[in-house]
Amino acid sequence: MAAPPSTEETPAQEGAKLRSRPAVQLKTPKGTRDLFGPSLLLREQIFQTMTDVFKRHGGMPLDTPVFELREILAGKYGEDSKLIYDLQDQGGEVCSLRYDLTVPFARWLAMNTNFQQVKRYHIAKVYRRDQPAIARGRYREFYQCDFDIAGQYDAMIPDGEILALVVEVLEALKLDITIKINHRKVLDGMFAVCGVPSDKTRPISSAVDKLDKLPWVEVKKEMVEEKGLPEDVADRIGEYVQHSGGLAQVVELLRADAKLQANADVKAGVDDMALLTTYTDALGVSDRISFDLSLARGLDYYTGVIYEVILTRPAQSKTAKDDEVHVGSIAAGGRYDGLVGMYGKKTIPCVGVSFGVDRMFGLLEARQAAAAGGRRRESPVDVYVMAAGGGKAFDGLLPERMRVARELWAAGIRADFQAKVKAKLLQQFKAAGDTPVGVILGQDELARGEVRLRLLNRGGNEGEARDEGRLVKRAELVSEITKMLAGAAPGV
Amino acid sequence: MAAPPSTEETPAQEGAKLRSRPAVQLKTPKGTRDLFGPSLLLREQIFQTMTDVFKRHGGMPLDTPVFELREILAGKYGEDSKLIYDLQDQGGEVCSLRYDLTVPFARWLAMNTNFQQVKRYHIAKVYRRDQPAIARGRYREFYQCDFDIAGQYDAMIPDGEILALVVEVLEALKLDITIKINHRKVLDGMFAVCGVPSDKTRPISSAVDKLDKLPWVEVKKEMVEEKGLPEDVADRIGEYVQHSGGLAQVVELLRADAKLQANADVKAGVDDMALLTTYTDALGVSDRISFDLSLARGLDYYTGVIYEVILTRPAQSKTAKDDEVHVGSIAAGGRYDGLVGMYGKKTIPCVGVSFGVDRMFGLLEARQAAAAGGRRRESPVDVYVMAAGGGKAFDGLLPERMRVARELWAAGIRADFQAKVKAKLLQQFKAAGDTPVGVILGQDELARGEVRLRLLNRGGNEGEARDEGRLVKRAELVSEITKMLAGAAPGV
Repeated sequence: MAAPPSTEETPAQEGAKLRSRPAVQLKTPKGTRDLFGPSLLLREQIFQTMTDVFKRHGGMPLDTPVFELREILAGKYGEDSKLIYDLQDQGGEVCSLRYDLTVPFARWLAMNTNFQQVKRYHIAKVYRRDQPAIARGRYREFYQCDFDIAGQYDAMIPDGEILALVVEVLEALKLDITIKINHRKVLDGMFAVCGVPSDKTRPISSAVDKLDKLPWVEVKKEMVEEKGLPEDVADRIGEYVQHSGGLAQVVELLRADAKLQANADVKAGVDDMALLTTYTDALGVSDRISFDLSLARGLDYYTGVIYEVILTRPAQSKTAKDDEVHVGSIAAGGRYDGLVGMYGKKTIPCVGVSFGVDRMFGLLEARQAAAAGGRRRESPVDVYVMAAGGGKAFDGLLPERMRVARELWAAGIRADFQAKVKAKLLQQFKAAGDTPVGVILGQDELARGEVRLRLLNRGGNEGEARDEGRLVKRAELVSEITKMLAGAAPGV
Repeated sequence: MAAPPSTEETPAQEGAKLRSRPAVQLKTPKGTRDLFGPSLLLREQIFQTMTDVFKRHGGMPLDTPVFELREILAGKYGEDSKLIYDLQDQGGEVCSLRYDLTVPFARWLAMNTNFQQVKRYHIAKVYRRDQPAIARGRYREFYQCDFDIAGQYDAMIPDGEILALVVEVLEALKLDITIKINHRKVLDGMFAVCGVPSDKTRPISSAVDKLDKLPWVEVKKEMVEEKGLPEDVADRIGEYVQHSGGLAQVVELLRADAKLQANADVKAGVDDMALLTTYTDALGVSDRISFDLSLARGLDYYTGVIYEVILTRPAQSKTAKDDEVHVGSIAAGGRYDGLVGMYGKKTIPCVGVSFGVDRMFGLLEARQAAAAGGRRRESPVDVYVMAAGGGKAFDGLLPERMRVARELWAAGIRADFQAKVKAKLLQQFKAAGDTPVGVILGQDELARGEVRLRLLNRGGNEGEARDEGRLVKRAELVSEITKMLAGAAPGV
């Protein structure tokens, strides 16, 4: 066991010691990762697609700190609270990393009393000390992309809009999805009708929530053996939670059950779902929704509709990887009318959804790679500035290459040159890699006020001169290159 | 004092207790803040501007986790190490929040041995338990925007490119700046010539670094009284650090000083600076650079050029706030050739710069507000879908409004409607606020396959009907609105 660093050491001493120490373990912390280059550009595209949809719905962005006062997070996440990352108490306030973006939003609403109605989106990382499952896209640090509608409105209208937005986002990403939906009041009322004592509602709800991962026998075992539920009560729950189907169909089924209808919670929940059905019909998204009585959601703060979005394996896609069906839900959310009120006097009902980018990322990345096919990867720049010449007198024309690069940068053109004083032409061609356009400077041509422009051959032997290019006036370089690049449409 | 929560409690019990507790303190942690709406959109614009410049130089994006294994950060930050946020040890790895983006980049380079030469950018938040100074834009959680060039190249070429990039970024942001530059070897050699013992080089360097905030007498006091430097040695340092001026000018001055030139470090550093001058001349940025012998930079890891970017108060700007001159440096960086090698066998020389967005943010926000002048703020959406009608038979046409909104969203148009079943027209006009275009649905018109389109009067009495608009075919709604929006160029 490594001894903890003594606090008596000055940082300078500590630094000196570390420099002479054997190499430290080179890794990112468990359940986290680095992303570089094309993967990151893809993720930014996904964020942009989502942001576009969020803005279409009148969403405004919010950013909050990555950590919150610990008491802000306390008591919001049920059994998942143990997964919260705490900051060390180094004097001052006691803080924890955010677990989701919903609680920070509720805290912000409670603080900013001038916002009575707001649609906000927030794309940021959240932190959970969960067991990572990298293959399924489950990390300890991961992005959530949230859209929420806060405020008092007529019943179920914002709920319907969120569902329409979910469909729009996933259509824009070309992902085929099903939204599983349930209602906390239906669920809680159903538990009561089955005979679950009210103090066991949330723990039993948590158990039911595992039905997408575990078979019924396992879930029942947890209810009976771990949570002390009588077996006949569990069996009654087992019958109900098998039901799922179209919104209208399950509403009808629930209304036909006199025992359930006698429960005020169930009745209120079913009325909500019936109203929601008229709205999802008008919004044209009902066919994407499955009313699933086994959906429970783990978090404490939901009070109305709850939903999870799962990928539907498209019938035609025989090549889809197993990953595609095993990533679990790629978005989830629901109504939480009590959360803001937990922070102050003001009560603001809210409904929202959270998209989990990391879970869909592997899939989208594989698709992008497949779509790119044999095409070569995009070059980091569009123009490579080179110098041609030889002999002892040739000085490499570095300041001239710099001047040209600076001109191109100033014109918004992506450009590079080899950071070598006396660069050989062949080396420069190699360094240019896949760059589409080359500018070749020569001492004599420069003296005549000319430079050579050349389309760099893609896919041939690197460095081999394919054509001689053409001379253009030095003064017209930028406009000539702009024309060339417009023509040489890169194969992105 | 509040008792710490007992670990014996189940999360459910804890939750129940918290719900019945008096309201928690509603704030973000010390030195952090929320950002919402237009401020955040401005920040995203700034990031986009920077990213565009970074990409022009062939930069590729990198993202790393917000926390690192603690030993990765240890011994890299000198006296500032005490400002690192540690995560609580909850079992498993011991981690800390990143303090900058440079050390994570070095760790990534050491891990990914296939990257021998790379230009990378990284825009992300970093964390420092410093005394916040909000008015000057100094936060504990703040964004850094880093661009670094890693790899073995001919001397000073990447250093020159970084300086050109700094000028490009700040020109794109229309900020008038000066780059203060120095060289660690010049500084360390100068200390040696003055008689500073080698084990005191970094502490004395830290003291000199305070010269932009403290007068010389204070800095000298720290050197002599706190750091035990003989007074005559401090006085010799005091003479040198007064010098600053153009690159070529200070290079000449240093070369004329025989005592300094006799020191190998000084000589090597001055040669670097002379070479750099030819490159900054070629890149056309020498006039933005001041060679300042008092610049020291606090961090341990720099080995070559170091620089800080400060705002130059433009002569014509009489209205500039005091803030503008008091934000301190808005970007800084330097060469760090030893950092990557601290993690493994591979040595990769690096040079880079970090832009501090939060420090320039207040200034850019004030400018944006001034530029917007009397103009009304932009509306969150472009089209508001309303229903007209009255009497008992009027049902509010909510599903019809939803259908229209969904069509507009599908066409990429930002749209909203009032989330009320029976909305009154006047209320809907009020809710539309500054939205430029209104779609007004009527029962009879819908029956005829028509809808009313209307430019909503901006700046008049809200809700007052100004004109009757015009009827368009329901089927042509999207194309008509697209035309209207193209014409009604919003005053952004």
